[in-house]
Amino acid sequence: MSQFENVTVVKKANVYFDGKVTSRTVLFADGTKKTLGIMMPGEYEFGTDQKEIMEILGGELKVLLPGESEWQKFNGTGEFVIPAKASFKLEVLTVTDYCCSYISE
Amino acid sequence: MSQFENVTVVKKANVYFDGKVTSRTVLFADGTKKTLGIMMPGEYEFGTDQKEIMEILGGELKVLLPGESEWQKFNGTGEFVIPAKASFKLEVLTVTDYCCSYISE
Repeated sequence: MSQFENVTVVKKANVYFDGKVTSRTVLFADGTKKTLGIMMPGEYEFGTDQKEIMEILGGELKVLLPGESEWQKFNGTGEFVIPAKASFKLEVLTVTDYCCSYISE
Repeated sequence: MSQFENVTVVKKANVYFDGKVTSRTVLFADGTKKTLGIMMPGEYEFGTDQKEIMEILGGELKVLLPGESEWQKFNGTGEFVIPAKASFKLEVLTVTDYCCSYISE
């Protein structure tokens, strides 16, 4: 779907890495949460609390998932899943637009 | 208000100036529109179609409004208004979080 309807959006941005990664929080009526974000080129490491599904809406980047030794490459659109309580590395090559879904288990 | 409720959010980002300025579009039930955006440090010139109310949610920047010779300075929060069919200049000094309201006249 190209838009989210009947949602709540938190006005203030979430800002990480001096603003090189930013996102807005979208809250759904069923209690679930997503963030819509932008990553500027750079190298980042993130930790998860909940399981996360990262949908790449546009951009070129490489991802090292927890426990893996091979980087996954994305150019355009794609998706990867990060387990809860894990960390993963990103090498963002071009401005990347993403949607992250937080999954309670 | 700190969040917008019962709105529609367009999933894909609006991207300007190689991603140094990005925003998400929020559509309201009354037919009005706002964008929630981030500007990285840099110098930008924008043109308006409709009248715009720019609310600065956080950041340090200078603004040259149309027809003015003096730059306005903002550090933290603030607001400025740009008429329809006009252009304005921004000098963004730190990562700036904003909410832009589009006003039909």
